Amino acid sequence: MSTPEVGDLRTGERAETTEETADVAVVGAGLAGLVAARDLDRAGLRPVVLEARDRVGGRTWNRPVPGGTVEAGGQFIGPTQERLAALADELGVATFATYHEGRTRVDVTGGGLAFKGARRVLAELERMAAEVPPDAPWTADRAAEWDARTFHGWLAGAGEPDASGVLRMLTTAVFAAEPAELSLLHVLAYIRSAGSVDLLTEVAGGAQERRFAGGSHELSVRLAARLGARNLRLGAPVRRVRQGPDGVEVAADGVTVRARRAIVAVPPAIGDRIEHDPPLPGGRAQLHQRMPPGSTIKVSCLYETPFWRDEGLNGGLLRDRGPITVTFDNSPPGGDRGVLVAFAQGDDARRLARLPAGARRAAVLDVLGHHFGERAARPSGYLETDWTEEPWTRGCFGGNFGPGGWTRYGPLLREPSGLVHWAGAETSAVWMNYMEGAVRSGERAAAEVAAALTRP
Amino acid sequence: MSTPEVGDLRTGERAETTEETADVAVVGAGLAGLVAARDLDRAGLRPVVLEARDRVGGRTWNRPVPGGTVEAGGQFIGPTQERLAALADELGVATFATYHEGRTRVDVTGGGLAFKGARRVLAELERMAAEVPPDAPWTADRAAEWDARTFHGWLAGAGEPDASGVLRMLTTAVFAAEPAELSLLHVLAYIRSAGSVDLLTEVAGGAQERRFAGGSHELSVRLAARLGARNLRLGAPVRRVRQGPDGVEVAADGVTVRARRAIVAVPPAIGDRIEHDPPLPGGRAQLHQRMPPGSTIKVSCLYETPFWRDEGLNGGLLRDRGPITVTFDNSPPGGDRGVLVAFAQGDDARRLARLPAGARRAAVLDVLGHHFGERAARPSGYLETDWTEEPWTRGCFGGNFGPGGWTRYGPLLREPSGLVHWAGAETSAVWMNYMEGAVRSGERAAAEVAAALTRP
Repeated sequence: MSTPEVGDLRTGERAETTEETADVAVVGAGLAGLVAARDLDRAGLRPVVLEARDRVGGRTWNRPVPGGTVEAGGQFIGPTQERLAALADELGVATFATYHEGRTRVDVTGGGLAFKGARRVLAELERMAAEVPPDAPWTADRAAEWDARTFHGWLAGAGEPDASGVLRMLTTAVFAAEPAELSLLHVLAYIRSAGSVDLLTEVAGGAQERRFAGGSHELSVRLAARLGARNLRLGAPVRRVRQGPDGVEVAADGVTVRARRAIVAVPPAIGDRIEHDPPLPGGRAQLHQRMPPGSTIKVSCLYETPFWRDEGLNGGLLRDRGPITVTFDNSPPGGDRGVLVAFAQGDDARRLARLPAGARRAAVLDVLGHHFGERAARPSGYLETDWTEEPWTRGCFGGNFGPGGWTRYGPLLREPSGLVHWAGAETSAVWMNYMEGAVRSGERAAAEVAAALTRP
Repeated sequence: MSTPEVGDLRTGERAETTEETADVAVVGAGLAGLVAARDLDRAGLRPVVLEARDRVGGRTWNRPVPGGTVEAGGQFIGPTQERLAALADELGVATFATYHEGRTRVDVTGGGLAFKGARRVLAELERMAAEVPPDAPWTADRAAEWDARTFHGWLAGAGEPDASGVLRMLTTAVFAAEPAELSLLHVLAYIRSAGSVDLLTEVAGGAQERRFAGGSHELSVRLAARLGARNLRLGAPVRRVRQGPDGVEVAADGVTVRARRAIVAVPPAIGDRIEHDPPLPGGRAQLHQRMPPGSTIKVSCLYETPFWRDEGLNGGLLRDRGPITVTFDNSPPGGDRGVLVAFAQGDDARRLARLPAGARRAAVLDVLGHHFGERAARPSGYLETDWTEEPWTRGCFGGNFGPGGWTRYGPLLREPSGLVHWAGAETSAVWMNYMEGAVRSGERAAAEVAAALTRP
């Protein structure tokens, strides 16, 4: 298989529609779709991947900014994220430790006592999460009860009112959604899916522990290069999937692919855009209505140097009010340039989005200046990525179930619809909504299809 | 304006795309879209209505069945539904009283005591609902608190555990969703929007009081006939709305309409299917992700005569368990034929949908036979309409907000997006999700557009 330059893959729109045949049509060139394509190829099946955007990577994305490139989407890798680590090894993408030496800035009402209260609540959540089977949260003994209330409602009864600010901060940092929007069962399933609260929230020892040299986006870029231009079409949003007795016809802008099966690897919340013939079953269609992603604005600020390190700061900030609640030192390895990444999440992101650009920037830099000094308020480069504004994503980090969702629609997450299989980070029982989950979902969907098509 | 036969309006798919110009492109030929078109025409503005289906009427639908026609969608009109009544008057569509003489069959654990407890709970809900401004539920003093919990969670604390079956039955009858899926604030806003619990739930004195001669669908059929074939395209799903500085270009299968403004009158949950250029703001896009409609299977059973009337029964059934929880006598006026209509709603509809057709029918008829006698189990005609299976609806009766929705996305429901205005039953402050709300939303959107386009 040839390995063209990535630039060659940018095919853009076409006036004419070409027809192609493949063994499997894969919808979406995020990590899930690209990993599925890799595994299909290994199984001797030819995939064709159709991607709406003019780039690969989905919710991972290297964006240029004066002075360099910043990671605008998912970027971390941590312990137990084994399939993601294996993928990076395989592709020769190195990882390095997230800079975490020195003090984290903390600005939380109640200080240490608030954290102590939060820890007690989180320990209780972990005990409950242990009762949730990760591959079938709807079968937990208390699933109906936990799915009938919001996380907010449960927190209100948890007996630690002073910890509410910290717990809200952690919730929005993990889900990009507010406790009021989430089913308690979703929070428990999520903890179980990751393994523990610490694995979700920590830098050292948690999901934020390491980063990818060149950015996580590099994984998708290399997968795409290996896949080859012949098997990947960019700028080709899929509009319709037709199923016949022996195969599928997947119609995208500019190209129609006839294949034996399809794998749809896009977030459930945008799944309704694809017309299916025959129509999808009602339950599957309603699942697509019930996993809204949260709201995030990720802001990258560039500096000549990571000057905060000289002052004993690690660049991290934990804050229990908006617009910015969490920051990290996101400098490239070596530290010859400084990058702070700041997150507005949940309601903070929604409020920030309503401000004009100048006021948004001022509000963000005000927080950074306050906690990291005047220099932090004068970055040489500044880039916001509001994932709700991205037409092919419309929210981050991933789809969340509100109350009632898991017990009614959870069983349908991975259930194929005829010749159509489902992938994407939301469908993973392990590290759901993380890059690890995306990789696992692609591997799982490819294995389903390979088993069906190579059966003796 | 000519008034062609309705048959003439069925244009179907076309191989070629025609171009049309109009003052306003209206997306969706349900009641909201057709009423908007009527009002635009009256204001001297030419509308063109684009409809995905090969029929008008949206969630109202006359379906043929051996022995006659049955109403498969919204069908009732009740007190205070003034704009709907005015529309029927204007179109010469008569109404008649829902048959309600004699006894209602009741099969509820706890019987009268359960209803007594439910009444106390409902009175408390009405008191709370009085604090919710119908046109801005998010501004209620306790909006944040009420929107942060499920209706289920509130009911669990309402101190009437014996009434839970009745309250769940009423909830699913009104929302087609379970208490666990609904924000408490949504339930309160809904009660306030209709005016009272009795107005929502009663036959005499409530929203089920009267019916339309020939079916509610007749309203849309007559509006469409008056609009004229020139101004209505069926079989024309809208795929893309482009906005320029002076107008919009609305691209549907087979036809592209250039107009000065657009009104989109489809349920929010299917709004994400239409691509917008420039893309919709993030908040609007996320609203579309957060109003999932409930699940309903409406079953019509036809008989030679409404034989139950002879036994002093009114054909109504209230039952606190599935698969069927509610029935009505849905016979045509005059009583020369008998029709019972039976509803499976919420989880009952979802469970019923998973059975094979024969088992579904047997389960429904078992309930009818048990409560209305052996003859009820042997209908001469039988028709199910599962609204989750309808590709252009995907759920009924209307979109519901789960926790967190109203306070975050409610303010966007009626906010125009540039030259695109929003209609549909979900957008109405009065009788939200009812035909009355659809009519009002069409009138409101048309008034917005007329004010903008006829400004001196």
